[in-house]
Amino acid sequence: MELKDFGHLQRLLKEKGLVKRLAVVNGTDNSTRRAVERAIEAGFAVAIFIGSADEIRQDESLMRHADKITFVEAATPDEAAAKAVALVREGGADVVVKGLINTDNLLKAVLNKQTGILPQGELLTHITVSYIPSYHKLLMFTDVAVIPKPTAEQREKQLMYVLRLARELGIERPRVSLIHCSEKVDERHFPVTGEYVSLRDEARAGKFGECIVDGPLDVKTSCNRHALETKGIKSPIEGEADALIFPDIEAGNVFYKAITLFAGGTTAGLLCGCTAPVVLPSRGDSVESKYNSLVVASFCGKQEI
Amino acid sequence: MELKDFGHLQRLLKEKGLVKRLAVVNGTDNSTRRAVERAIEAGFAVAIFIGSADEIRQDESLMRHADKITFVEAATPDEAAAKAVALVREGGADVVVKGLINTDNLLKAVLNKQTGILPQGELLTHITVSYIPSYHKLLMFTDVAVIPKPTAEQREKQLMYVLRLARELGIERPRVSLIHCSEKVDERHFPVTGEYVSLRDEARAGKFGECIVDGPLDVKTSCNRHALETKGIKSPIEGEADALIFPDIEAGNVFYKAITLFAGGTTAGLLCGCTAPVVLPSRGDSVESKYNSLVVASFCGKQEI
Repeated sequence: MELKDFGHLQRLLKEKGLVKRLAVVNGTDNSTRRAVERAIEAGFAVAIFIGSADEIRQDESLMRHADKITFVEAATPDEAAAKAVALVREGGADVVVKGLINTDNLLKAVLNKQTGILPQGELLTHITVSYIPSYHKLLMFTDVAVIPKPTAEQREKQLMYVLRLARELGIERPRVSLIHCSEKVDERHFPVTGEYVSLRDEARAGKFGECIVDGPLDVKTSCNRHALETKGIKSPIEGEADALIFPDIEAGNVFYKAITLFAGGTTAGLLCGCTAPVVLPSRGDSVESKYNSLVVASFCGKQEI
Repeated sequence: MELKDFGHLQRLLKEKGLVKRLAVVNGTDNSTRRAVERAIEAGFAVAIFIGSADEIRQDESLMRHADKITFVEAATPDEAAAKAVALVREGGADVVVKGLINTDNLLKAVLNKQTGILPQGELLTHITVSYIPSYHKLLMFTDVAVIPKPTAEQREKQLMYVLRLARELGIERPRVSLIHCSEKVDERHFPVTGEYVSLRDEARAGKFGECIVDGPLDVKTSCNRHALETKGIKSPIEGEADALIFPDIEAGNVFYKAITLFAGGTTAGLLCGCTAPVVLPSRGDSVESKYNSLVVASFCGKQEI
């Protein structure tokens, strides 16, 4: 199946009839409230607002959905984060949503070795799902925000998480490109190309289930059949990538910024690796983007890793 | 001055009244012939076709400009490359243009220690000039093609070459952003951010003449004032970058591919560092892109380095 856009995802979510419990950490800012309100209205979410309840109770628009909203008191953002994470651990919430709290403080609660929600041996990494008007389907990529320069082992985790999310979104045989500036394997100048070959071969041997993994490929040969043919290259991706794995955070971040600034792209973003997805918007993300992130997060099943 | 698009550059070139001598290495392929023909018709070029003359002489459209075309015989592409480079050394040509020859073979002639045209201490690096419909002016960037991971010293050269080209194009006070995934200086995880600070400080101290250099900045805060303000950051670039320096070839290449594939971008590309610009299109570059490269190369004065 090809996922056309975020509207398509929302219709699929509706068909599933899921209702997710969002643990909203200090969600007093307007854009978090609006995104959560839209999720409730769309019918796939109920919200647990953790932190000061005052702003929420005064939000008349949001409080039209009072039956879908509960409150948990917390004196500080840090306490709110700890309580959200505890809720997930106890099975009382399905998604963690960042409101007005520093990313580092939220992550401290998420990553706490005793009380956090990142199982040992897992990797906290970021996946973006993007709608680019000039591409014919949604395009996922990792990692624009967390891991500076993945080791081969970390990249394998990134691949596994991307495949899991793609399948949860309904893509039975995800096509994943391992991105490099060229299609040549050149381990001397670019050790990453050798790591890509190993990962590709393991994927072909069936290690990751049904999927098509290829690389090194560049962005253009990954996403455009004509570019692939012009270069005289063959790839089972066939210019139809569902997901891109970038060599490092610099390349990933450049892609994210380029498509959102210059190509009219809209995005959803998730932290993966934890037992529940963590929605952690950047300053300046639109309500639309935050809402899209809630849509995508709601496809994620409980992560039994 | 702001350079709006490639048409704008072409009008400026016309005003200058320059006529450049293009040393075309084995330019028997159709797209090279068409790009050179357009340059001759626009009035800023004469061509020296080096290699087999047969295809050229049979090209009726091109041969309407026979008075602007000369031929130098060469039995092989390698010999053609050597002769083109020798012509530049002797002052008989201003620009080297790649036709049907492997990039590596052309570069061998360019880089030859005895007979080549890269002065000692200089760096062969690539600059792209791009027109992105959603940006309000031309945007230059480096390096998408040659230097895998610049050292601090190499990056300084890249900055100097970008500034030189920007000034040759008429930008008196070029704004150059040093690109990173964030605006934080974090030398422990990202040594490049410390190098950026040094380079920025040297620029402010006047080492590179009139210019505005800042970083680390991401692509969005470099090219969008609103994004800068939303993040609460101040930068003298003010979201109005004329040029971006990428941390490495992976990030640069992702940007190049993203804007051309998804944002309708068109580009010109040059190799810099030699005593003459080298126009070296990729397979699959359009005639338009090759022609744009000839336009940009024709602004370059003789590089007395």
